[in-house]
Amino acid sequence: MDKLLALDFGGTKLTAGVIAVPDHRQQRDWHAYRRVFLPPDDHAHYEIRTMFSLAKELLDNQDPIAMGVSFGGPVDYLSGTVRLSHHVPGWENLPLCEMLEAEFHAPAQVDNDANVAAIGEHRYGAGKGYASLMYITISTGVGGGWILDGKPWRGVESMAGEIGHTVVDPKGPRCLCGKKGCLERLASGRYMAQDAQIILKEQPDEGGILRQLVGGHLDAISGEILSQAASQGEPLAWKILQRSAWALGTAIGNAANLINPQLFVLGGGVTKAGVRYWDVIRTTAEETSLPEVHFEILPAALGDDAPLWGAVALAEDLLERKSDKT
Amino acid sequence: MDKLLALDFGGTKLTAGVIAVPDHRQQRDWHAYRRVFLPPDDHAHYEIRTMFSLAKELLDNQDPIAMGVSFGGPVDYLSGTVRLSHHVPGWENLPLCEMLEAEFHAPAQVDNDANVAAIGEHRYGAGKGYASLMYITISTGVGGGWILDGKPWRGVESMAGEIGHTVVDPKGPRCLCGKKGCLERLASGRYMAQDAQIILKEQPDEGGILRQLVGGHLDAISGEILSQAASQGEPLAWKILQRSAWALGTAIGNAANLINPQLFVLGGGVTKAGVRYWDVIRTTAEETSLPEVHFEILPAALGDDAPLWGAVALAEDLLERKSDKT
Repeated sequence: MDKLLALDFGGTKLTAGVIAVPDHRQQRDWHAYRRVFLPPDDHAHYEIRTMFSLAKELLDNQDPIAMGVSFGGPVDYLSGTVRLSHHVPGWENLPLCEMLEAEFHAPAQVDNDANVAAIGEHRYGAGKGYASLMYITISTGVGGGWILDGKPWRGVESMAGEIGHTVVDPKGPRCLCGKKGCLERLASGRYMAQDAQIILKEQPDEGGILRQLVGGHLDAISGEILSQAASQGEPLAWKILQRSAWALGTAIGNAANLINPQLFVLGGGVTKAGVRYWDVIRTTAEETSLPEVHFEILPAALGDDAPLWGAVALAEDLLERKSDKT
Repeated sequence: MDKLLALDFGGTKLTAGVIAVPDHRQQRDWHAYRRVFLPPDDHAHYEIRTMFSLAKELLDNQDPIAMGVSFGGPVDYLSGTVRLSHHVPGWENLPLCEMLEAEFHAPAQVDNDANVAAIGEHRYGAGKGYASLMYITISTGVGGGWILDGKPWRGVESMAGEIGHTVVDPKGPRCLCGKKGCLERLASGRYMAQDAQIILKEQPDEGGILRQLVGGHLDAISGEILSQAASQGEPLAWKILQRSAWALGTAIGNAANLINPQLFVLGGGVTKAGVRYWDVIRTTAEETSLPEVHFEILPAALGDDAPLWGAVALAEDLLERKSDKT
């Protein structure tokens, strides 16, 4: 039995999946699958060693016929070299593709997680049947990836899709990237949690529901906790989420005017904030785009596994290119 | 001698050019060329009649072997139907491509002026040798067109490139499109002139150089006049142009983060505002884009003829597709 190996190096976790080919065309299911969480004092070499042994276990020590890899940070797509990780030290300029090919004796394709998730949602998820879409993930940070005319669009330096660092409010609060009012500064879980914590510390009468949800431990507030509080009627949480949704709607409307795709697929923890949140996104995006520009905005279908399914698609494409050559 | 016909339906003028093939590969020059200006009470049917007789004259009544057409307004690229003109009545849903093919017995390709100018600058102008670029024209309005990986990217409804209606300052002044702080509202010649006129009417001590340049006739102020005044040291004109350049730089930086092209080509009258203007654009664009995202910003090389040269490229591509089929 031939096997495809799909790997996802996430910010806080590693996931590996094995697909049996060509069976998977009939039944889209994992032959083997495992996820492990990473320690806080993590390092690139530890991650690679852990992922290698995880993969070998799942493969039952058989080499795969192709590998697809999602990496949580900027990657040079052509060489498969990781540029860096914003979360974990030691990744600077590691030739991940080369290392994998040496270890598993099969061709590999490495790409950044937002591109790979876009590919996953396009081939197997909410974007099936659409020619052109943008996938946006709104969780700790905000990232994105494009499919244009059926193919991933990565840009000339593999940097396309960075919607999180488009400016939506030049008079807004400052982002770590140096600019003011980036989408990520206004819409991401990390920054929303930070904003909530500051308000709660300064205003002891505000945010009762939110305080209750974290048992008074303000540091435990996250984007998902904010979503939960908002759905329970917490006005402070909703105020912050509303700004997040407005920022997202503006950035989506701007992207629609620039590129005119059919669809935006939104994934990540923050998007679970409920109907009101989605309404603000949709209304703002429609107001921002020109009347002649139309698009849908849909929730992602593959959840946390979007990058892993995208990695399967990368591996499939490697096989196809190989068979084209022979 | 075989001939290609290139037509440009502009907002205030019609231009037609004839190219002799395959001579034009050696010497890129017009076999015949003419431009006529349109009356203010213009109508679509008058434009079409005028353009037809202009073309026939230039062609010496011989049919061309292919036609490329630039139209100053939204066009459905696949059918070659004009959606509307924002300047001239009667263009609504006119099947321009069909009408041309019936009149001149040759295949035609129609596209909107920003896309066609992008194609022209890419094949014959400042973008020669670049795989991916955005062309932006800053004159009466602000429009744009994409070349991605060597080919025009028009979007699923032929609406891509509308950078003029991306929001750069949501607290900015209101644009005719209904939104606040669109790039076009802040950077276009028409709106800058309007803003200058209002200030000059309210503040009789301001803008001496500007008043002199138009002999006191404030209605004669245009984007080009503002540029001229700024280069002569007029502070009011420079203040307005500076905001225009800031808005452009922000929109370019955002577009670079989203799509990661190699190059932005800027054309149109407003871009003649001099080194200071370009410096603000470049600095702001660099600040807005991520450190890993690199691009050049260059002035357009073909001037007002960019759409006409793009129309030549459209006609060339029609011939190539024809010879591929046979």
